[in-house]
Amino acid sequence: METSSKTARQLFQELKDRNYGGRQLGFGARPALLNIDLQNCYTRAGEFSSAYETDPAQLEQTNRLAAAFRARGLPVVWTYIAYSHPGRDTGVWSVKVTSLLETATGSRRAALDERLHIDLAQDFIVQKRMASAFHETHVGSLLAHHKVDTVVVTGGSTSGCVRATVVDAVSRGLRPIVAEECVADRHESPHFGSLYDMAQKYADVLPVREVLASIGRYPVL
Amino acid sequence: METSSKTARQLFQELKDRNYGGRQLGFGARPALLNIDLQNCYTRAGEFSSAYETDPAQLEQTNRLAAAFRARGLPVVWTYIAYSHPGRDTGVWSVKVTSLLETATGSRRAALDERLHIDLAQDFIVQKRMASAFHETHVGSLLAHHKVDTVVVTGGSTSGCVRATVVDAVSRGLRPIVAEECVADRHESPHFGSLYDMAQKYADVLPVREVLASIGRYPVL
Amino acid sequence: METSSKTARQLFQELKDRNYGGRQLGFGARPALLNIDLQNCYTRAGEFSSAYETDPAQLEQTNRLAAAFRARGLPVVWTYIAYSHPGRDTGVWSVKVTSLLETATGSRRAALDERLHIDLAQDFIVQKRMASAFHETHVGSLLAHHKVDTVVVTGGSTSGCVRATVVDAVSRGLRPIVAEECVADRHESPHFGSLYDMAQKYADVLPVREVLASIGRYPVL
Amino acid sequence: METSSKTARQLFQELKDRNYGGRQLGFGARPALLNIDLQNCYTRAGEFSSAYETDPAQLEQTNRLAAAFRARGLPVVWTYIAYSHPGRDTGVWSVKVTSLLETATGSRRAALDERLHIDLAQDFIVQKRMASAFHETHVGSLLAHHKVDTVVVTGGSTSGCVRATVVDAVSRGLRPIVAEECVADRHESPHFGSLYDMAQKYADVLPVREVLASIGRYPVL
Repeated sequence: METSSKTARQLFQELKDRNYGGRQLGFGARPALLNIDLQNCYTRAGEFSSAYETDPAQLEQTNRLAAAFRARGLPVVWTYIAYSHPGRDTGVWSVKVTSLLETATGSRRAALDERLHIDLAQDFIVQKRMASAFHETHVGSLLAHHKVDTVVVTGGSTSGCVRATVVDAVSRGLRPIVAEECVADRHESPHFGSLYDMAQKYADVLPVREVLASIGRYPVL
Repeated sequence: METSSKTARQLFQELKDRNYGGRQLGFGARPALLNIDLQNCYTRAGEFSSAYETDPAQLEQTNRLAAAFRARGLPVVWTYIAYSHPGRDTGVWSVKVTSLLETATGSRRAALDERLHIDLAQDFIVQKRMASAFHETHVGSLLAHHKVDTVVVTGGSTSGCVRATVVDAVSRGLRPIVAEECVADRHESPHFGSLYDMAQKYADVLPVREVLASIGRYPVL
Repeated sequence: METSSKTARQLFQELKDRNYGGRQLGFGARPALLNIDLQNCYTRAGEFSSAYETDPAQLEQTNRLAAAFRARGLPVVWTYIAYSHPGRDTGVWSVKVTSLLETATGSRRAALDERLHIDLAQDFIVQKRMASAFHETHVGSLLAHHKVDTVVVTGGSTSGCVRATVVDAVSRGLRPIVAEECVADRHESPHFGSLYDMAQKYADVLPVREVLASIGRYPVL
Repeated sequence: METSSKTARQLFQELKDRNYGGRQLGFGARPALLNIDLQNCYTRAGEFSSAYETDPAQLEQTNRLAAAFRARGLPVVWTYIAYSHPGRDTGVWSVKVTSLLETATGSRRAALDERLHIDLAQDFIVQKRMASAFHETHVGSLLAHHKVDTVVVTGGSTSGCVRATVVDAVSRGLRPIVAEECVADRHESPHFGSLYDMAQKYADVLPVREVLASIGRYPVL
């Protein structure tokens, strides 16, 4: 095992400076935007202790991505975590992550942040209970039905639900792309550590500017 | 987001010193041992560039665990990665992880390390193709049929297949326990970063000594 | 292929008279009750053309089962089908089954029949979109977390969602038991044909009386 | 429930005569051929009591389909059932279907019928353990990676593994098409009963001639 005195942030920066080793997946025939758990209990840093902020422009940038996808008829999905019977339908996960016990269906904690521009007529809103957006949800068949082969992922946490979603996406034959300024975490070490791991193993990590440029090449409806 | 100049190793050590915040899952009614990808291309550091070594006693300790599980009739599972048609059944994953293209079914790269003590009559050997041991394999129904509610995980890489397996395990209602000296990675930052994340979010991280003590409390056959 | 001039009803009756060949799964350590799609559009035969009635006592018998399970702390699950964006999240399935296009989330078609005695504090209510209750829902992890190894299945249709659920249950390592008077279908041939197939291949088919007798052997809370 | 004195064969014939009600899925952008369990224990009627024959030309017709798919670069998949530890990795299913206990990996029972023309360099061979070809196998990600949206299904049994595969296919957003002369079952009632149910609910049932005509419209490589 290679040893190192560098932080996760430094290692990610070095990987980025080497252009991620050059092995990029690229965009496929039809991307979707998959926004993970941008709900109050994770986005309202002043209000909930479970919330965090990485890039202050995260929600604004996510709105920009969503508008670009929507304009081209590309699917936009928003997931959120909520439980009907906290403690009884949270599995053992809530032993580790106790804040899940407070995230009841219909609560303010579970509600998507109002600063997001969500088109209720077009976008898909999906309840999830575990880390990956694919786990025991209809995201898989939804993307298959819409012939999606690429997922641009935003939201949080980088080291939690975003990463679990990215691993599941690539395992199911989809190309995951992480919109760098749109993912957030509580602490910089898991944040940059997961960006590093995802860029190495599973996903392209791209600045929003580059994602928008790529989406701009799909035909407007 | 909390900033820090600490390395992933330091952060994991601090978390460990605080006894992981005290939120442990514990062992359930029936554990299984799930050994991830202890195959030559990951364990023979002198022979394959894709291999790595973290704790030199990893395989020996894993053998010790396997013997303890077997003596109590608790299931022992060994997974390995292999492809019949590298490039055609590897999905997009092999764009990122090019060594997968060389890991053909029946090859020396795919074979489990001969230093492992595998009981072919009792243990289950499972081919997998993606990161998680649960993804598109029969590990899920196998563990359900054997009434397993706890999985002790070994193997590698810590930040790749071990972590993906742990996330899937907790998502499916199982208690994951990582045997610390038995997991390995290429670089210390993803190794300790993933131990930190797993201990925080998904799993108990325990020294082999403690795993053996807990397994010792299940009745010998 | 064996030819025959018998109807599905006759063949099922013959199989039953031979005690299903004697190969019964039996009850395991912990059963759950899984009630499939007992929602107005399938139960209100006078109101919806998609509805059907087989045994007039179906709902009453199902209530009796639910009470028996609840009294013993055994999980009771009620599923229903509903879509947020009919036509866009129904997949290709709605091309075949056009009534799905009318089954919107929150509609009377989607609501569970009010004649059912549902304990909102204890029972689990699960939205599904496809035939099997396990497909892209959290029924799998829910049952795992509650250590369920046996599922008693009621609801409809026998040849559709009940059968798909039973096939998935046995495939995941659970013992499916069909409560005979509590499953219903539109036409007798698929109804009895699926009872025959399930009894042969996947499940025990038992009268409610026998299910109640077996549940009676689990300790009351 | 509609009552009837007609056999499953008669009801299927009537449905066919009404052109299946006219609600056909049709072929999508890219079909794959999915051949279910055409292994000796199900195809060698003279040799194994678990085998059955419906149309004597089944294998020949299946070879014809496979050649047409292959000529156009469309994926061809052959599944088979086998167990490494019969009784220990067969779940509860083998209590119902005892012949599974004899179907060991590497046995003649598990081997694909030699009369099949399989192109080992091009075709995918997939081991399965449960009824559906998608259940705990990599068929899902394989089809996703090859951008398949339509599956033509052959093999057996019609009421067992073919039907379970068809239900899973449509549930995952794929269009299932059953090649009528290429599916077989032990007894005519479950055979025609499942053709009837699949045609009504989940799949197009087409004669091989029509499947070949449709495949003929995809470009030859």
